[in-house]
Amino acid sequence: MATANVVTPQSEDFPKWYQDVVAKAEMADNGPVRGTMVIRPHGYAIWERMVAEVDRRIKRAGAQNAYFPLFIPQSYLAKEAEHVEGFSPELAVVTVAGGEELAEPVVVRPTSETVIGEYMAKWIQSHRDLPLLLNQWANVVRWEMRPRLFLRSSEFLWQEGHTAHASAEDASAYARKIHTEVYNDFILNVLAIPTFLGIKPPSERFAGATNTMTCEGMMKDGKALQMATSHELGQNFARAFDIVFQSDAGESAHCYTTSWGSSTRMVGGLIMAHGDDRGLIIPPRLAPTQVVVMAVRDGDEAVDAACASLVTALDNADVRVTLDRGRGSFGRRVTDIELKGFPLRIEVGPRDLAEGVVNVVRRDTGEKTLVALADVAVTTTTLLEAIQADLLATALHRRDSLTVDVATVEEAIAAAQTGFARLAWDLVTPEIEKQLKGEALTVRCLQRADGSMPDHEKEAGLTCIIAKSY
Amino acid sequence: MATANVVTPQSEDFPKWYQDVVAKAEMADNGPVRGTMVIRPHGYAIWERMVAEVDRRIKRAGAQNAYFPLFIPQSYLAKEAEHVEGFSPELAVVTVAGGEELAEPVVVRPTSETVIGEYMAKWIQSHRDLPLLLNQWANVVRWEMRPRLFLRSSEFLWQEGHTAHASAEDASAYARKIHTEVYNDFILNVLAIPTFLGIKPPSERFAGATNTMTCEGMMKDGKALQMATSHELGQNFARAFDIVFQSDAGESAHCYTTSWGSSTRMVGGLIMAHGDDRGLIIPPRLAPTQVVVMAVRDGDEAVDAACASLVTALDNADVRVTLDRGRGSFGRRVTDIELKGFPLRIEVGPRDLAEGVVNVVRRDTGEKTLVALADVAVTTTTLLEAIQADLLATALHRRDSLTVDVATVEEAIAAAQTGFARLAWDLVTPEIEKQLKGEALTVRCLQRADGSMPDHEKEAGLTCIIAKSY
Repeated sequence: MATANVVTPQSEDFPKWYQDVVAKAEMADNGPVRGTMVIRPHGYAIWERMVAEVDRRIKRAGAQNAYFPLFIPQSYLAKEAEHVEGFSPELAVVTVAGGEELAEPVVVRPTSETVIGEYMAKWIQSHRDLPLLLNQWANVVRWEMRPRLFLRSSEFLWQEGHTAHASAEDASAYARKIHTEVYNDFILNVLAIPTFLGIKPPSERFAGATNTMTCEGMMKDGKALQMATSHELGQNFARAFDIVFQSDAGESAHCYTTSWGSSTRMVGGLIMAHGDDRGLIIPPRLAPTQVVVMAVRDGDEAVDAACASLVTALDNADVRVTLDRGRGSFGRRVTDIELKGFPLRIEVGPRDLAEGVVNVVRRDTGEKTLVALADVAVTTTTLLEAIQADLLATALHRRDSLTVDVATVEEAIAAAQTGFARLAWDLVTPEIEKQLKGEALTVRCLQRADGSMPDHEKEAGLTCIIAKSY
Repeated sequence: MATANVVTPQSEDFPKWYQDVVAKAEMADNGPVRGTMVIRPHGYAIWERMVAEVDRRIKRAGAQNAYFPLFIPQSYLAKEAEHVEGFSPELAVVTVAGGEELAEPVVVRPTSETVIGEYMAKWIQSHRDLPLLLNQWANVVRWEMRPRLFLRSSEFLWQEGHTAHASAEDASAYARKIHTEVYNDFILNVLAIPTFLGIKPPSERFAGATNTMTCEGMMKDGKALQMATSHELGQNFARAFDIVFQSDAGESAHCYTTSWGSSTRMVGGLIMAHGDDRGLIIPPRLAPTQVVVMAVRDGDEAVDAACASLVTALDNADVRVTLDRGRGSFGRRVTDIELKGFPLRIEVGPRDLAEGVVNVVRRDTGEKTLVALADVAVTTTTLLEAIQADLLATALHRRDSLTVDVATVEEAIAAAQTGFARLAWDLVTPEIEKQLKGEALTVRCLQRADGSMPDHEKEAGLTCIIAKSY
């Protein structure tokens, strides 16, 4: 196994394995300014596919994209006291522009919540303007002291949705719709990562929110990663930004608002949920390239012709396919293709070709199948579906086997060393939460006994998931 | 004409007309920080379509997308003396981050040229790594004292391509490929704006470039708008950033680099190239919504059902269609639809419907046609193609009739008051260029006598286009 040397084994040092995969699969590099990142073409192609899939679902849910400025007056952030408290240690501030000291410094957006609030107030007059459903794809900045590529960076890419509604019920229903039909649907059905859907305990809520919903994914090391969150803000933001509408009866009232976001962090989640000691594994529905076709040996005309016609046949069958133009030995090229995580590779060699077959290799299992040339398109499509299903099944099995029902806080602490602990929520007092934090553990989310999302943390019979997290 | 009151007529005050269209068609608003802009959903949907069309062409030309950080160390900009000179008055500088004064202030990118140069130096070792073809979609900041929405803003959205090549010929050929097959193809065939393709005179070149190519479009007021530019940078940037490769023979040499960009400025160009006194006109190939279906009267069940089935029929015919959910009188709704520039609207009324027809109205000409329900999909497709062709023909006719061949500088100054003047380039000395600037005129580009792009400004027999510009 030449590849055994390429990345540190997961079992040896999981964080080092992660770093190695990010570097060797050419996903990202550290930027020149501490905490920033350079997303390289392979990493960015994966992000572009995430954007396309999430954006399609957001539009299907009725929201419209818009773009708000990078620069926000410092005074805006002070309007919502809790909000500014949540963000102030992380702000980057422009004090000089156009060759002069600015009279009022401007903040580089840590989120566009405040500026969007300001414009919602301007655009909303009557109940007929509601709901107002906006989304933005943008870069945001939160100064990061302990950066990690994709997981925590001073600048990251994300989408943030912001909506205003006439009633609490409508706001709540929309936030839930986004959370399940956009985020969880994408994470489960495209990323092949099963999540625990639940609400955050009050201590972990977004600043200013009345309710925060989360999708918690389990990484291969048993830690949790918050994949996306959706917030109900009640009338808190509407009051701070004066987002008011006239009802049908002519009465004035504050709107109910929501916000929701997902980011390049999901790329980190993808790596840690599926990757193995040979590198990245990308689920077929996400993969920018689903199949790599490679000639086993350079310079054989018949092989080159067969490769070209396979690419055409797969492209015609709507498979995202590329021809490997890698250099070096066959082994070196296979190592590179495996590092980058393409779901299938097709090896075309002169001897197989003479018998009318090619070698189709699954990235997830390593399984090799000799397939007749005429059957490649059909077999490929079937295999891609199988890989998607198997990745999800494997992740689901891992999550469920590493999630332990416990009866006491002590048992929870023990179980959460290697996975998730599920405990009765009414056992977790604020003091217990502090104790857990001392053990580097947090309550990731609250769920009903049947695993569904509660309306609020005061429902009877709730359980909570306790884990280490990224 | 109810709409006559909605926007200032072009003939009365063209800049005011532009402002009115941007505001009333809900394209954009001024941001809270001077010079920044809020791109509203209608404006952003148009930009998204531009991004999709340009991105497709960039990928077809073989470049890959990546993402480089927003923050650039100040020292990077100093590496290329000419470069820093070109940008320094426009820089926004972060001096405080994470609650502390930064040891080295960081610049908010005015372009990513320098940081991409740094990483190219890292990623390129041998001739086998060339060409390296990168592109980035991002926001950039250039502090603007006289902002105008879409045309000049302190922050704008753009793509910037950066490539490195082994030879001057290869770099030059690629820059020309991008300029013609990406930019001009998109501007001509999607935006329906005919351009003059040419090279900039040395005085107007991008800082550090050995050659700058431009697509100059003519706006309805006869002024020029630079729609996109492509630069050959020779070995200048490669020397400044040490971008070196080993040749096949093992010798070390500096790469030849190119850069090329297009931005949200194109939205401004779109507005001014086609808009009229009723608002925006969007060419069908660009339009996010090509057809708006509207009920002439609310609450008529047969009409509503006909609207819904028309939307389905057009959607099935791959037409981008939406159902108008506007409020208010029929006249008010028509005014809004016209302001936003959708190429076609279909009015569905009870009386027409009783006769099995609907009213199809062209935005560009106002022409109305009664069309049998069964023929709507076919007629719509034909009309959309006709509108696309007619918008281009009209713009081409305007450009050609407002471009005057002149023999002297005095004649050029006179002609450029209302359009473009074409003059022999060898008549334009540096002193004449100064004189032109005094008249608020510039040499927009140099062309060969047959209208093609010269290789350099020293070719014999070149002509130049002189005009006012945005």
